[in-house]
Amino acid sequence: MTAKSDAPSPRSILAVGSMALDSLETPAGHRADCLGGSATYFGVSASYFAPVSVVAVVGDDFPSPYLDRLRHHGVDLGGVEVVQGGRTFRWRGRYGTDLNNAHTLETQLNVFERFQPRVPEVHRRAPLVFLGNIDPVLQLSVLDQIEQPPFVAMDTMNFWITSHRPALEQVLARVDLLLVNQNEAYLLSGETNLVRAAEHIRAMGPKALVIKRGEYGAALFHEEGVYMAPAVPLRDVVDPTGAGDTFAGGLIGHLARAPRHDFLAFKHAVLQGTIMASFACEGFSLDRLFALERGEIERRRHDLEKLISLR
Amino acid sequence: MTAKSDAPSPRSILAVGSMALDSLETPAGHRADCLGGSATYFGVSASYFAPVSVVAVVGDDFPSPYLDRLRHHGVDLGGVEVVQGGRTFRWRGRYGTDLNNAHTLETQLNVFERFQPRVPEVHRRAPLVFLGNIDPVLQLSVLDQIEQPPFVAMDTMNFWITSHRPALEQVLARVDLLLVNQNEAYLLSGETNLVRAAEHIRAMGPKALVIKRGEYGAALFHEEGVYMAPAVPLRDVVDPTGAGDTFAGGLIGHLARAPRHDFLAFKHAVLQGTIMASFACEGFSLDRLFALERGEIERRRHDLEKLISLR
Repeated sequence: MTAKSDAPSPRSILAVGSMALDSLETPAGHRADCLGGSATYFGVSASYFAPVSVVAVVGDDFPSPYLDRLRHHGVDLGGVEVVQGGRTFRWRGRYGTDLNNAHTLETQLNVFERFQPRVPEVHRRAPLVFLGNIDPVLQLSVLDQIEQPPFVAMDTMNFWITSHRPALEQVLARVDLLLVNQNEAYLLSGETNLVRAAEHIRAMGPKALVIKRGEYGAALFHEEGVYMAPAVPLRDVVDPTGAGDTFAGGLIGHLARAPRHDFLAFKHAVLQGTIMASFACEGFSLDRLFALERGEIERRRHDLEKLISLR
Repeated sequence: MTAKSDAPSPRSILAVGSMALDSLETPAGHRADCLGGSATYFGVSASYFAPVSVVAVVGDDFPSPYLDRLRHHGVDLGGVEVVQGGRTFRWRGRYGTDLNNAHTLETQLNVFERFQPRVPEVHRRAPLVFLGNIDPVLQLSVLDQIEQPPFVAMDTMNFWITSHRPALEQVLARVDLLLVNQNEAYLLSGETNLVRAAEHIRAMGPKALVIKRGEYGAALFHEEGVYMAPAVPLRDVVDPTGAGDTFAGGLIGHLARAPRHDFLAFKHAVLQGTIMASFACEGFSLDRLFALERGEIERRRHDLEKLISLR
């Protein structure tokens, strides 16, 4: 007996965001010029659940082994522009013992400064789209290049909320899901209360909202209700860089396999995001994400469900 | 048909702690000399579930209507010493928009400075004991006055952790449950990671540990496993003073009714604490706790269980 016919094949995901070279200092050690970027973390995380293609830009200094690793992992790089003579976006950051907060030491936008995302023809009908944390004007240009898909999710950050508000509001009106940190939710809404912030933001457009709270978990606000998920309590946090994009990759990866996008599917998607984010934190860069085995994901889901089980 | 015989009558709780007059400034308003103190919040919260008696000290300036209200609520004040000519412990604090952190403006210990808890003969066999946040030397003196009960829980704070460590370690070795905030857990353990801090602290004695995380909920570490509970997301937080002691009152009140103190009972006890703490935050002082109706507690439990349900 086989249940294969019950499992619909996963729908494909289009992701736009950054590809970067990160230099990191955490209490666990230092790393220079390692693989980073929102589209990278998102893509590898989502690749465990669904086909994913990435739209991004790098310079010709971007190490080809990094591209090979992504391709080998099943991430479609057809939408990645390589700027000849250009330098890749670089970020240098430090974490203290409070691993919830990164201190940016240096940002070099480089080729990212003139990034004009171009969605390859073949991906313009992707049923799920993730707009990573980039200029909302670029997020809009992606939406304008594609057929309005059934599901669009977006991320953003303090800088766009403060300085690019009108464009950001246009994107918000066109998305199904917004993922933001709690402080970003407060800045966007002008509220300092989770419930009020969520009400305010959902009135701006997104039918669903996930407020990420770092080591404290995530809160899902959906038209059918609210769901609170803890983070996986980790014994060893090596490097939290990319945890938010990895969370989004797991969440949207789960939705790509879900027959319906109802409240229950969103709850399980939040848990899948939580699980993938926990792995991201256990190694530098994408080390742990690249090395993951299916069984580890399943075991961690089992562990996470035990942490919140009332039995 | 009746199921009355299935519900064992709740066991009684003995609580030692402070009774205070609080002056509060929160974004919701100001209040002067209102009812406060750890034993007060704990006692009223626990009184919804089990008989509770309080050991504390006040001055003769303590308003008798406050005592009447507590007695009317079923809190046994036989162990409350009234010092003639003495002034009651006073605390003045302010909360900004971040309601997780109180700023102490003034502390007057007054009669609390020479507090020598005396447990009335009639309460020396209480099966559940709560040692509120007082000098660990006094917590020890309470334990020495009573028959070692089946269940002892304690609270503490940064000041005792830093300045009264040897006595604190003696208490820790004799209790079943420690309740502390996350920053206190880190200070006590010397760790800055939740899992490691919990391992370290449980090795000091307590079989169970609840780490309170304010608006982010609570984590239970028990010999049988870990359980993570969110806080109730509140639309209006008026005054978070006493939320931790109210949490402890709900938690231990629940255990006083539980036939067994197993992991499952502790999980439900953590949720009961979470529920009671949420009410405490919805009014100044104990206003909301005094006015609670049984049905409100049940409805909020229903709401909280929905927030974490995977159905």
